[in-house]
Amino acid sequence: MRNLNATSIRVEQDQLWILDQTLLPQKQQWLECRTADELTGHIQALKVRGAPMIAIAASLLAAVRAIIGDDRDNISTQLKQLKASRPTAVNLMHAMNRLASTLDTAQWRETLVAEAIAIFDDDRRLCDAIADNGATLINAKDRILTHCNTGGLATAGVGTAMGVIRRAHDNGKNISVWVSETRPLLQGGRLTAWECSELGIPYHLITDNMAATLMAAGKVDKIIVGADRIAANGDVANKIGTYSLAVLARHHDLPFYVAAPDTTVDPGCPEARAIPIEQRGANEVRGALGARWAPAEAPVYNPAFDCTPAALISAWILNSGVYTQADVDTGAFRTSD
Amino acid sequence: MRNLNATSIRVEQDQLWILDQTLLPQKQQWLECRTADELTGHIQALKVRGAPMIAIAASLLAAVRAIIGDDRDNISTQLKQLKASRPTAVNLMHAMNRLASTLDTAQWRETLVAEAIAIFDDDRRLCDAIADNGATLINAKDRILTHCNTGGLATAGVGTAMGVIRRAHDNGKNISVWVSETRPLLQGGRLTAWECSELGIPYHLITDNMAATLMAAGKVDKIIVGADRIAANGDVANKIGTYSLAVLARHHDLPFYVAAPDTTVDPGCPEARAIPIEQRGANEVRGALGARWAPAEAPVYNPAFDCTPAALISAWILNSGVYTQADVDTGAFRTSD
Repeated sequence: MRNLNATSIRVEQDQLWILDQTLLPQKQQWLECRTADELTGHIQALKVRGAPMIAIAASLLAAVRAIIGDDRDNISTQLKQLKASRPTAVNLMHAMNRLASTLDTAQWRETLVAEAIAIFDDDRRLCDAIADNGATLINAKDRILTHCNTGGLATAGVGTAMGVIRRAHDNGKNISVWVSETRPLLQGGRLTAWECSELGIPYHLITDNMAATLMAAGKVDKIIVGADRIAANGDVANKIGTYSLAVLARHHDLPFYVAAPDTTVDPGCPEARAIPIEQRGANEVRGALGARWAPAEAPVYNPAFDCTPAALISAWILNSGVYTQADVDTGAFRTSD
Repeated sequence: MRNLNATSIRVEQDQLWILDQTLLPQKQQWLECRTADELTGHIQALKVRGAPMIAIAASLLAAVRAIIGDDRDNISTQLKQLKASRPTAVNLMHAMNRLASTLDTAQWRETLVAEAIAIFDDDRRLCDAIADNGATLINAKDRILTHCNTGGLATAGVGTAMGVIRRAHDNGKNISVWVSETRPLLQGGRLTAWECSELGIPYHLITDNMAATLMAAGKVDKIIVGADRIAANGDVANKIGTYSLAVLARHHDLPFYVAAPDTTVDPGCPEARAIPIEQRGANEVRGALGARWAPAEAPVYNPAFDCTPAALISAWILNSGVYTQADVDTGAFRTSD
């Protein structure tokens, strides 16, 4: 297959490499992914992360395995394994289903590889369309609060929520960003802070519990986040802490936007309640990055995601357009294209 | 002076010792405090912390210096220095004023030492009264969310918000606690988790951004926090993240209580806007406890406290009683006793 290159993933001479996102920004270490077992481990450890990116990585791994010569049954098993590696983001499930449907074609190897490459290439275009659509909602000098990481590391392109921010910055709107650190795994403090810094976008890092006081002080103009799954009624599952920001935004009368590709919409999922939320290990909350501060056996509650009801969302910024509550109510998310 | 003993402070043979709270729970290290400079440093580094406890520590240091033989002017200067060591909590200012007023008496050394001991002894009684008053608001099996640390480490007694929780537990109410970790300095994750564990109070540790999703899931019955200053109109300054919890509690129709001694009320402060909020160093947000994860030069916003308007507070639990919004409106906090 042809070589592919993005910020956190690449294919070179039919070998798949991922940038270990748990070590950023201190260390840039690329890991070769040879097997579905290996990639499943990396996905579960968040070495590769971001709803669009885990779909891309799993797709490219399947393509690499098809080129190596794994048989159809074996590929089918690997697609199922990868699909089950994380339960909340739906992009991964869409991508694995898309590749599984190629297995019944005559030239399945070529078709699967072409589809995997298309998933990678599409993502760049989806990001650009999201960024263009979202930029229409951004005013000059907006102070935008974002959560988790939704940029070049989480996608093959400019990102989703972060893509909107980047486009507005590139368009000379003089925006600035509040980056919430996103405990427990600090995707904001590590990854978004690093991306802003690399891109020259003015930002300040805050702990998650500071967002409210910034809003009360009139220092935030809008909030933009990504999504792991959008239900048919517009409810959104996203990184833990998103729902908290949505409630705070409502209390302070601030617009709250969700940015994602169409592939994040799950028409088969009627509402948030039907979205499975992954509970993760206790040590993530007991400390961070090797430091441990809580009592060793501290009981912990650690949901990786939360659900934000559609009623708290001002607009959904997809590649296919900007959707309002009225669009959602009339069924915009009830069928896939 | 007579020996004094509390969880995080002690006086032995006229020497003052504090437990270094930045090292808990991993390490229990006692530090001798000999001078106002030394104690000021420990207060600013949060080695000694908690609005009641910094007032007690500063008072006992002044007593120790008076016994050593520092002259009146020197003591007066030290009281001023200690009073300025942190700007938000008002208990410290009250205590330093109380000791300064002894300097004009004939037997000022004896009077000052007696007053400092009284501040220590009073705090135990204040905590007990707060705990008794607050316990009337707790129902069997309540699941109580608390923030920061307000227990035996932060006071000379059972604590303020934590004292209420402890009393309800001791009374056999089968309560359980959600401990929010309280970034950036993790007083919840380190100190409250440790106190709950030592006291056998059932608890779970969460990151600050998980509180909202717990509330939405119906897993929280009430929120109780401490206070660093209560303005005459009932507005409360407390650890950063408190205001966020108050807004979330309101959205989910949950009671939000503030527990503190009468000495936390500042009748001279009309409203939250008049309370100075300390901004702290950037490295607290760039990492934690030696681990650093953000870009080295990441710009940071780091207010140590926030303000919660009276309108979001269901009741104020003081040692002198439980106050409602109606009490506050009719001037309960406009004069000191």
